[in-house]
Amino acid sequence: MPRAADWTVREVDMPVPKLGEVLCRAIYLDVAPYMRGRISPQKNYAAGVRPGDMMVGGAIVEVIESRIDGVCEGCILVSDFDFGWQEYGVLKTGQFRHVDTGLAPMRAWLDVLGLNGITAYFGLLERGSLKAGDCVVVSAAAGSVGQLVGQIGKIAGARVVGVTSSKEKAASLGEFGFAEAVAYRGEADLAAALKTACPQGVDVFFDNTAGDIHDAVMQNLAPFARVVVCGTVSLAGRFEEPDMGQRFLRQILVARAEVRGFLVLDYQSRYDIARGRLGAWLREGRIGSRYDIAAGFEQTPAAFIRLLRSENIGKQLVQIREEPGD
Amino acid sequence: MPRAADWTVREVDMPVPKLGEVLCRAIYLDVAPYMRGRISPQKNYAAGVRPGDMMVGGAIVEVIESRIDGVCEGCILVSDFDFGWQEYGVLKTGQFRHVDTGLAPMRAWLDVLGLNGITAYFGLLERGSLKAGDCVVVSAAAGSVGQLVGQIGKIAGARVVGVTSSKEKAASLGEFGFAEAVAYRGEADLAAALKTACPQGVDVFFDNTAGDIHDAVMQNLAPFARVVVCGTVSLAGRFEEPDMGQRFLRQILVARAEVRGFLVLDYQSRYDIARGRLGAWLREGRIGSRYDIAAGFEQTPAAFIRLLRSENIGKQLVQIREEPGD
Repeated sequence: MPRAADWTVREVDMPVPKLGEVLCRAIYLDVAPYMRGRISPQKNYAAGVRPGDMMVGGAIVEVIESRIDGVCEGCILVSDFDFGWQEYGVLKTGQFRHVDTGLAPMRAWLDVLGLNGITAYFGLLERGSLKAGDCVVVSAAAGSVGQLVGQIGKIAGARVVGVTSSKEKAASLGEFGFAEAVAYRGEADLAAALKTACPQGVDVFFDNTAGDIHDAVMQNLAPFARVVVCGTVSLAGRFEEPDMGQRFLRQILVARAEVRGFLVLDYQSRYDIARGRLGAWLREGRIGSRYDIAAGFEQTPAAFIRLLRSENIGKQLVQIREEPGD
Repeated sequence: MPRAADWTVREVDMPVPKLGEVLCRAIYLDVAPYMRGRISPQKNYAAGVRPGDMMVGGAIVEVIESRIDGVCEGCILVSDFDFGWQEYGVLKTGQFRHVDTGLAPMRAWLDVLGLNGITAYFGLLERGSLKAGDCVVVSAAAGSVGQLVGQIGKIAGARVVGVTSSKEKAASLGEFGFAEAVAYRGEADLAAALKTACPQGVDVFFDNTAGDIHDAVMQNLAPFARVVVCGTVSLAGRFEEPDMGQRFLRQILVARAEVRGFLVLDYQSRYDIARGRLGAWLREGRIGSRYDIAAGFEQTPAAFIRLLRSENIGKQLVQIREEPGD
């Protein structure tokens, strides 16, 4: 588990944008579980951040100097990965999209219309091969992706059970489409609790955490179950050592289940299709998000650690300055 | 691990076939790894055999009294599951197929043209989504299913690496289509040996064993790898206790791999299609089997245990009497 003291703030000269670049100031910085994998020395699907590097990360930013045609000063942009943890920075063509606050509130562009929405959409509907009538379990259900899995699952005719850390979070899940919520802290037999919540077994498990929740769900697989391995945040801090515990090959065989690794980046060519649908559901009021906003650039490491500790409720962001026009 | 003394021979009255039944005597009895699951109290995909019951199992038999039209005395039949470990027994319509020794040798009907061939065919080509150019690893490669995976994989344009217990068995794998063979006994670092054999990673892992071989392959997954969980024979005798060890969720995520439970029974409606192709390859001399034949009904438990201990080379059968006409 990282500590806030693992990061230091460094002051550098203000960058000067070249042709094809824009200089921006941050309004919101994203912190997200995937960043834990990026600061691990273990093999990952993307290049790592080494000590001394700037952290990667998405942001919503305001343009203060533009050398790109069609991007004006004062424009609001969103970048999924390429801004990083900084107050001012340069983005190149291809590293951002325009934010239209007439279509959706600014924060939604880093959430429902950002990687969270797209992850929930493709992970559940495509990688999970969701069918109406399925019983779905999602871990980290009160997190940024989890709360969207609940809502998209409900739209798709599934019954979604959320697993979250505390009773307090569990109580809040109803508004996000969840049929039931299970709090794992203080639950002596999580496998039995899930059996009660899903008496016919789990058809789709959207796994954001690995660890104990994974173990409990694997004992409740319905025939032909699909397990979407989206995140392994419970292994944070243990990436270097093997993850030891119960294996479930016999259960997978007997259920003819499929355990499927999932990376949203594989769906990049169709992000726009997902965004179109997510945007429509958002405008119709059928999906929405709760946000957990930390204030001030210096709070970014603390907000990230809060997330790794499951202390956030809803999508965690760091607000660097007021939204323009607020 | 069962012992031969766990079985006893019981003499009963010769059954009398009713209308729609035939009375048969066994020529070959099948022993196969799936039978280990049937004598375990753990949840399985099929009903278990309890102490005092007769063992289930396939057989090649000769009809000695028929009360089914179109089945003559002296006809040779094959039953995949329903004959059991006995010298004489009754089969009903639907529990057998006719054996045509003009098309393939008698033994092949319990092997290439039986569940082994069909398991290798659907497991590799469909459940494994095999593509020409794939690197395939199969465990228990010298076993009844493994030796067919090697040959079918080669026909399908894949490069197949077999993992087997001993150097002696490994040396024999070349004739079964394998590009390479790895002996795991005495191999200090099986994961490294597989990395040498599959430098680009493993695209399809046909897993007959679970256990240590599984662990080694999971450290060598190619992007988008498929792991077909066909059998878990290394867990034999440990079905009642959880299988503890390293889990590979992070590897599955990073590779976007799929671990897929596989039961051949799900493909029953298309067995004939597979048998047609397997039969053609057999007649063309493109696939074949080695057999490991024990002699005499009393040897059946010992032959089964031999199989569970990986002491057989090739498809294990028990010959009860001479083939008619021999």
